[in-house]
Amino acid sequence: MSESPRQTIDVRESVLARNQRLAQENRDLFRLKGVRVLNVLSAPGSGKTSLLQRTLTDLRGQLRAGVIVGDLATDNDARRLQSPGARAVQVTTGTVCHLEAAMVSSAAAKLGLDDLDILFIENVGNLVCPAAFDLGEDVRVALMAVTEGEDKPLKYPRLFKTSNIVIITKSDMADAAGFQREQALDNLRQAAPQARVLELSARTGQGMKPWYDLLLALVQNHVG
Amino acid sequence: MSESPRQTIDVRESVLARNQRLAQENRDLFRLKGVRVLNVLSAPGSGKTSLLQRTLTDLRGQLRAGVIVGDLATDNDARRLQSPGARAVQVTTGTVCHLEAAMVSSAAAKLGLDDLDILFIENVGNLVCPAAFDLGEDVRVALMAVTEGEDKPLKYPRLFKTSNIVIITKSDMADAAGFQREQALDNLRQAAPQARVLELSARTGQGMKPWYDLLLALVQNHVG
Repeated sequence: MSESPRQTIDVRESVLARNQRLAQENRDLFRLKGVRVLNVLSAPGSGKTSLLQRTLTDLRGQLRAGVIVGDLATDNDARRLQSPGARAVQVTTGTVCHLEAAMVSSAAAKLGLDDLDILFIENVGNLVCPAAFDLGEDVRVALMAVTEGEDKPLKYPRLFKTSNIVIITKSDMADAAGFQREQALDNLRQAAPQARVLELSARTGQGMKPWYDLLLALVQNHVG
Repeated sequence: MSESPRQTIDVRESVLARNQRLAQENRDLFRLKGVRVLNVLSAPGSGKTSLLQRTLTDLRGQLRAGVIVGDLATDNDARRLQSPGARAVQVTTGTVCHLEAAMVSSAAAKLGLDDLDILFIENVGNLVCPAAFDLGEDVRVALMAVTEGEDKPLKYPRLFKTSNIVIITKSDMADAAGFQREQALDNLRQAAPQARVLELSARTGQGMKPWYDLLLALVQNHVG
């Protein structure tokens, strides 16, 4: 056990250093193009695609949006997100458990940034590996669904500690799931005191407005 | 992008080869000790711990069970699983996104195998990385909750393709979640035709009996 992790970590560090350099290049390009970029992370099935789908529909005409979607396999999510309000590019990572800055750079070139206000990057569904990879985003957003229990911020501390916004999703199912809201908020205060916390349901629309206000302010501050 | 993955894969392969050797050593030891071993995998919050908690309670007196639990941080799950019916050992992996055979070997030594019929290994909540690491288990079990949507088998094919049993959990919330059961079963037939599929709710107890029958048969066949 002592050898294997050490070996892994050495290479991971050089991979991470290279990723950090490329993330900075992405960040410089995004600034130059005037695009605000959000990196959206969660467990599989927490509702990343549903949140973005509703957001793109509701803010159509107010935001020019693009989406880069990461998955191991399938282009289901890009197809779900392709809409009159936005265009989407799928990155299929094969066996790689996260998006890296270099993948985002290629996908952004394919997508085109010139006419965009905002770019959403929907990461691979995974609370561990994506947390270690800066993609050059302005804002990191972590989702946790009420159906997943209250303890995720404590069990996956790195992701929550590095997120600017935490969204508690599927709030319409809180009662059905027996969600302990106060416990979850306590855990978030402990693991992610820096994060702005939102609670919403992309299905019913409940709680979406503060999210939209935040996105619009983000884009306006950038332009201003 | 072309260099970084290649570098990673080379080392991963040697890590995987070493893991495979240690997994075989685990398997030999488990056989020698007469313990049946299940590796339980799912996304974060799919209900691994709740399933095991109820299983240990309900089968107390019929099975002598141990649990090894993997998490990045906290020993919450081991505390939840420590019970009169079973003993549990927590492995905290830090930043490592999966359990490896060597971690299981150390944890099994700490747990003690002599008086056990069955050992559950609750892996780190992650549908990607744990799929690549054989732990020496007899049976690989993948969980997917009805609240996560129907497409997980297609989006995380390796895990589902390598599982002997797939358990659809939280079936009591299927209606609330708008779960498309036929679509999910179709996706499973496509991604995991080899798997026995069970549907249950650890909260209501609905559907638990086929799971218990399967565990009891597994242990009896081993002894017989």
